[in-house]
Amino acid sequence: MSHSADQAVLLLSCGDRSGLVSRITHFIFERGGNIVDLDEHVSDDEGVFTIRVAWELNGFTIKKEDLNEAFAPLAKEFGANWRIAYSSRRPRLAVFVSKYDHCLQDILWRHKRGELFCDIPMVISNHPDLQKLCDFYDIPFYHYEINPANKAEQEERQIAFLREQNIDTVVLARYMQILSAKFVDAYPDRIINIHHSFLPAFIGGNPYRQAYQRGVKIIGATSHYVTTELDEGPIIEQDVIRVSHRDSVKDLVRKGRDLERVVLARALKAHLEKKVMVLGKRTVVFE
Amino acid sequence: MSHSADQAVLLLSCGDRSGLVSRITHFIFERGGNIVDLDEHVSDDEGVFTIRVAWELNGFTIKKEDLNEAFAPLAKEFGANWRIAYSSRRPRLAVFVSKYDHCLQDILWRHKRGELFCDIPMVISNHPDLQKLCDFYDIPFYHYEINPANKAEQEERQIAFLREQNIDTVVLARYMQILSAKFVDAYPDRIINIHHSFLPAFIGGNPYRQAYQRGVKIIGATSHYVTTELDEGPIIEQDVIRVSHRDSVKDLVRKGRDLERVVLARALKAHLEKKVMVLGKRTVVFE
Amino acid sequence: MSHSADQAVLLLSCGDRSGLVSRITHFIFERGGNIVDLDEHVSDDEGVFTIRVAWELNGFTIKKEDLNEAFAPLAKEFGANWRIAYSSRRPRLAVFVSKYDHCLQDILWRHKRGELFCDIPMVISNHPDLQKLCDFYDIPFYHYEINPANKAEQEERQIAFLREQNIDTVVLARYMQILSAKFVDAYPDRIINIHHSFLPAFIGGNPYRQAYQRGVKIIGATSHYVTTELDEGPIIEQDVIRVSHRDSVKDLVRKGRDLERVVLARALKAHLEKKVMVLGKRTVVFE
Amino acid sequence: MSHSADQAVLLLSCGDRSGLVSRITHFIFERGGNIVDLDEHVSDDEGVFTIRVAWELNGFTIKKEDLNEAFAPLAKEFGANWRIAYSSRRPRLAVFVSKYDHCLQDILWRHKRGELFCDIPMVISNHPDLQKLCDFYDIPFYHYEINPANKAEQEERQIAFLREQNIDTVVLARYMQILSAKFVDAYPDRIINIHHSFLPAFIGGNPYRQAYQRGVKIIGATSHYVTTELDEGPIIEQDVIRVSHRDSVKDLVRKGRDLERVVLARALKAHLEKKVMVLGKRTVVFE
Repeated sequence: MSHSADQAVLLLSCGDRSGLVSRITHFIFERGGNIVDLDEHVSDDEGVFTIRVAWELNGFTIKKEDLNEAFAPLAKEFGANWRIAYSSRRPRLAVFVSKYDHCLQDILWRHKRGELFCDIPMVISNHPDLQKLCDFYDIPFYHYEINPANKAEQEERQIAFLREQNIDTVVLARYMQILSAKFVDAYPDRIINIHHSFLPAFIGGNPYRQAYQRGVKIIGATSHYVTTELDEGPIIEQDVIRVSHRDSVKDLVRKGRDLERVVLARALKAHLEKKVMVLGKRTVVFE
Repeated sequence: MSHSADQAVLLLSCGDRSGLVSRITHFIFERGGNIVDLDEHVSDDEGVFTIRVAWELNGFTIKKEDLNEAFAPLAKEFGANWRIAYSSRRPRLAVFVSKYDHCLQDILWRHKRGELFCDIPMVISNHPDLQKLCDFYDIPFYHYEINPANKAEQEERQIAFLREQNIDTVVLARYMQILSAKFVDAYPDRIINIHHSFLPAFIGGNPYRQAYQRGVKIIGATSHYVTTELDEGPIIEQDVIRVSHRDSVKDLVRKGRDLERVVLARALKAHLEKKVMVLGKRTVVFE
Repeated sequence: MSHSADQAVLLLSCGDRSGLVSRITHFIFERGGNIVDLDEHVSDDEGVFTIRVAWELNGFTIKKEDLNEAFAPLAKEFGANWRIAYSSRRPRLAVFVSKYDHCLQDILWRHKRGELFCDIPMVISNHPDLQKLCDFYDIPFYHYEINPANKAEQEERQIAFLREQNIDTVVLARYMQILSAKFVDAYPDRIINIHHSFLPAFIGGNPYRQAYQRGVKIIGATSHYVTTELDEGPIIEQDVIRVSHRDSVKDLVRKGRDLERVVLARALKAHLEKKVMVLGKRTVVFE
Repeated sequence: MSHSADQAVLLLSCGDRSGLVSRITHFIFERGGNIVDLDEHVSDDEGVFTIRVAWELNGFTIKKEDLNEAFAPLAKEFGANWRIAYSSRRPRLAVFVSKYDHCLQDILWRHKRGELFCDIPMVISNHPDLQKLCDFYDIPFYHYEINPANKAEQEERQIAFLREQNIDTVVLARYMQILSAKFVDAYPDRIINIHHSFLPAFIGGNPYRQAYQRGVKIIGATSHYVTTELDEGPIIEQDVIRVSHRDSVKDLVRKGRDLERVVLARALKAHLEKKVMVLGKRTVVFE
């Protein structure tokens, strides 16, 4: 997605019916918008129509602040779930980490070189270890020590800080704490986790050890939106790598790290570029 | 692609400009067409616009026989390359083979179970070996013995037979003869070959031996449209498999066979479903 | 594995200790055996030593009928699990099927072209549908109609037939019946199944539908030895393919078929070449 | 490979003959060595025997300084190419870079966390850009500005510095200068390069642009030993990723970066663990 010129991006889903694409594109065209990307699909199994359409705002006759209102009648007629985002608006990201550095480093490095279109005003950790890495990338690091006694209170402080800083998206980059339902509900479809297994295999703790003990020949990593059910949120991206009897649990952990960082990065990139739509327990990831 | 109801499929490419998607979808909508699939892309590198749009003909107010003429003015205004195909029309396929049976068997098996939307009125071979396999699938088999003396003449006969039988698409399923320029020119972008290497590596003969000698760690297969330059035609599909020093040339041949048949099948399926557009030496394969 | 000359193949596992490889190879060398392949590993996690060693019998001073007895003292000293097989002995295979033909066809085709070193004296099915395919490959087909009332009895007859025909290995090539514990116990580590999911994800019925509903981005297939716990036997081979929101359940089934047949074929080939050793719930697959 | 106890590692190749494995393992066993890993193979195509065997030196009756001499007669009898390395000896690595940071960062990060068993006493660059990254990892950085006039002289200085620092292995981590034959000959099979294509496809400059123009559906990266023929050295490791018509040259570069760093890291790791043997233009990479 080129960010040189400002674009509007509509993500919409509804029951299939005649004329949806034409009506939507006509709405844009009549108001002077030039469509630069359109991807649309009707699922055979449920007859659900999904569309992502991006158009240039240069020459478009409706102002951003009026666009939602202008489009609402059409969406209402379709009975659609929808949102309109803007390519020029940089999402604001909070990255949560514990002690593992591989995912955080990958995110910060990609961010620095321009692969991830966002601001990162904060990295939050329950351990002090990754301060130095954040310093290297000039990203503010905040340490919230967490123990069973202060967990609820610290999480309250974190949520308040996220709100104060207008955070859009939370990334759990191997954060070893389970968020409360309250936290999760505050950011629906906007908390992205990386789980170190090929979900739904090996839910929960120590998935590499579980994989070793089951004797699988392939291991994986899964990035998904966080819901209140552990490891059950809508999957955004997965990838796998082959292993053999020669690989110890330690080898699985090492090989898995290389997966985790790229799977999380791809999921995050798709999310930031407004290419992900949640449909129940599944996602549509436009290309 | 569902074939339950007849659909029109437009494949079009042209230089990018404002309003292309809207104008095209509007053309369809105004004439009562319901768009069921639309995929569109503008390449960053050359600013080339490509679109594939499919719509239901039920309720569409233009007859098939008039549609090309009706759409031509718009295409002309865009300076576009384009064609309109119909989902209900079963392409007629000629499969050319020699002695190897793996690709032919895969095509006939997929055809029988409905994966490949086409008729196969003929399998043509320069050897008699695969007659029995064709008999099993009730597909007519024609043996054209070829030697240096009669090659040109036999090819003339083949071309005449293809014309007589209204063949749309030719598949070279490990056919061990090089087609003449005359044959190739008669079926532009409609002859599909499978080459047993990851092109452009290992052009020409004995690619598995070449791969072995070069010591690559991965081998591949490539399906492409045939042009008059050997192994240089637009690539439709490729896939690869890992090999090691333990694999002999014979092992590469065995592993490669499994690639060849699926790569050719995927390329053929995309072609038959009108999802492939040729742009110079490259293809756009819509999903 | 070359079958031109007869070879002995030792598969052995035991707790690690000093001198295992030397003692074993010395045993072979002193009796005139020429080792042609040796692969050995000590697992970091449990300290389990596993070895596969193949040697030529030409010039070897111990007769086949005496070899087990001759090697037993060494194995006893090591406290090892072990077996010795012979490359020249063609395993006798029974293939069980129902109505799906893709795995059966792949096995018969590979068998015919010499990829699978075995005899196939029987294909057994609870439906008559695949008779014609077996006829094409000149493989005897036996129909055992099964219903709730006669299931136990028919299985008895099948087991008796397998015994009468000296069957070594049973392949369930998408056989839609669950074998009884009695059947399973009669062929420990010698019944190979193909499950159409990436185990341990989606155990049980309709795994493609389960995968669709969970919204995974990759699907898989798993070949494993059958134990009395459903889909819990030691995994021999797995592979995966990428899917997207564009894929319906029907598409997953189609893509999965291509996986199932190659995963089963690879597992079967490794088994037939005496390259698989079971260690509890896991396998060692030598290369 | 565990480095907790010192091990000797023999890498050997020769023409196949009877008794090679037994003779070699017997040599070790008789002198009190406990073999912990052995991998051996005879290639069908050329009858070349290759072996990698590692044994514990604890209890071994020959001193390191005498081992080469002690083994030489056996190797001479076999007509073998061979070398013995020691697991406790940390290779000394020089990393050459220009401006791209992705491969360097990956190497330094893996080194820091213990994945790469080596010392890195120097990073050498023809540009000053990556000084700060080396500082973060406490690795000495040396800037050798290079222009056409001083290239030969600067290379002489680099070679002298490598010698002074007892460098074993040179890694070209996207170093944008071609080394002279003199440099290459000074480190046979010890200079590892990463080429950003699936060699032998797209030799030379701008491989991603070449790949884009040829319209391949998969791109790759290749790590190989450097010889005096550009991009023709023995391949150690390769990997690939799928691309589509939606990917611009810039996208290929981005996707390719993720490949380059892991392919180089895997090749380097195998090299450092004495698992790579060069056989003419090919490598054997033991697992």
